[in-house]
Amino acid sequence: MSSTRIALGIEYDGSQFFGWQRQREVVCVQEVLEQALSKIANHPVQVTCAGRTDAGVHATGQVVHFDCETPRAMPAWTMGVNSNLPDAIAVRWAKEVPADFNARFSATGRRYRYIIANQARRPGILARGLSHYHQPLDAERMHAAAQHLLGEHDFSAFRAAQCQSHSPNRCVTRVDVRRYGQFVVVDISANAFLHHMVRNIVGSLLEVGKGEQPLDWLAELLAGRDRTRAAATAKAEGLYLVQVDYPEAYDLPQLPPGPLWLPDC
Amino acid sequence: MSSTRIALGIEYDGSQFFGWQRQREVVCVQEVLEQALSKIANHPVQVTCAGRTDAGVHATGQVVHFDCETPRAMPAWTMGVNSNLPDAIAVRWAKEVPADFNARFSATGRRYRYIIANQARRPGILARGLSHYHQPLDAERMHAAAQHLLGEHDFSAFRAAQCQSHSPNRCVTRVDVRRYGQFVVVDISANAFLHHMVRNIVGSLLEVGKGEQPLDWLAELLAGRDRTRAAATAKAEGLYLVQVDYPEAYDLPQLPPGPLWLPDC
Repeated sequence: MSSTRIALGIEYDGSQFFGWQRQREVVCVQEVLEQALSKIANHPVQVTCAGRTDAGVHATGQVVHFDCETPRAMPAWTMGVNSNLPDAIAVRWAKEVPADFNARFSATGRRYRYIIANQARRPGILARGLSHYHQPLDAERMHAAAQHLLGEHDFSAFRAAQCQSHSPNRCVTRVDVRRYGQFVVVDISANAFLHHMVRNIVGSLLEVGKGEQPLDWLAELLAGRDRTRAAATAKAEGLYLVQVDYPEAYDLPQLPPGPLWLPDC
Repeated sequence: MSSTRIALGIEYDGSQFFGWQRQREVVCVQEVLEQALSKIANHPVQVTCAGRTDAGVHATGQVVHFDCETPRAMPAWTMGVNSNLPDAIAVRWAKEVPADFNARFSATGRRYRYIIANQARRPGILARGLSHYHQPLDAERMHAAAQHLLGEHDFSAFRAAQCQSHSPNRCVTRVDVRRYGQFVVVDISANAFLHHMVRNIVGSLLEVGKGEQPLDWLAELLAGRDRTRAAATAKAEGLYLVQVDYPEAYDLPQLPPGPLWLPDC
């Protein structure tokens, strides 16, 4: 029997799950998604994702692929799957892809947004969909400091101890820090990221934004390649995987990075 | 011992609680707030609120009052209480008020916002902080239809069967329906609201927005005073109590109605 390879764009509220991947006895995104897909496929389905997000981390642009033995019209993989998923996960798009497509290995770039509510009092609304910092942050200063990260570098200074990557080298292709009202948004793209890399970079950018470290601090940390000299890891609640890039030949849908409530940017 | 009366502005994510008021064995906002206030006051505290929200309904502008026997600096009632509250509730402001102030009976007006994500696919992010409608809604048409509600009327057509109010009369002072990107926001102010009044009005406005009912349908429903002829109650997740008005003499803080993630409007 011939099988069809399907790619899906997935959005989820990470506060409702214990990360992407199955571990111990807790509910993870992968497991819940595979259950819903298996119902539609009428056989067990295993998915491969572009980026395994940690507990508490959200996604608007996660991409997965899987193989299905039963022919289904595309709306079955969007509306049909959505009606079998809990409300904190939704399929945004579905597309048939060639058998050589792999959500993880075909990806050429990833983009994350880290969102900080910069206001005196912590919010009661969206509390697990944001990070919060109470003192004024200088977003322009953070933006200037972040430009030192552009290009190919050894990112050991921002790499978690448990990171399993063979190489500490990554190529940052874009990093913007901008203020939208009370939100400060760090928007960062790279070919790939080390474990905790975005949250570790944001932790150190916060020190610059508070005025507690000089403008060239990130360049210094990068050159030192010593994780212990950088700031603490920023918390998971503010982080969104918003986009994954693939070669144009696959012609995958491009949706706004979101999250949907963020002013268009 | 003399006591001090304190008013607080409260924000909460209603999806995390079973409504404002204690009932059965479930966690409600009032109970959690009273526990945190009692710790700071060092004696049991009872609060009175401006509007008892139903299960799943949110607030950015809820107001409560309570009496405290122990002198405390104001930051104890904001930062101090916030550090004792779960992350889905936060105090936005605190102010000492005269003994004749009552959060419920001194209120001269209430304002609600009902927020609909008007997009083909249901969102996975903020799923319990929004309502969702998949077909295009005509917000201008909804706005025009809603203007029939302005003024003092018998709102029996939009009143829940279990409503305990003596009178079905209320005075709507403002109603706006506007589109902000993919969000359609119904913004409505009145002296007070009947039980489920906003959600019942929104349910019927949705029929007008879909083009399934004529522009003057709300005038017709209002005149008929028959709940069974109006549309179904819109779901709780989209509703926010955003503001409560009091006589100017109390000089209470005026904060943006929010919710904080909604584009400034």
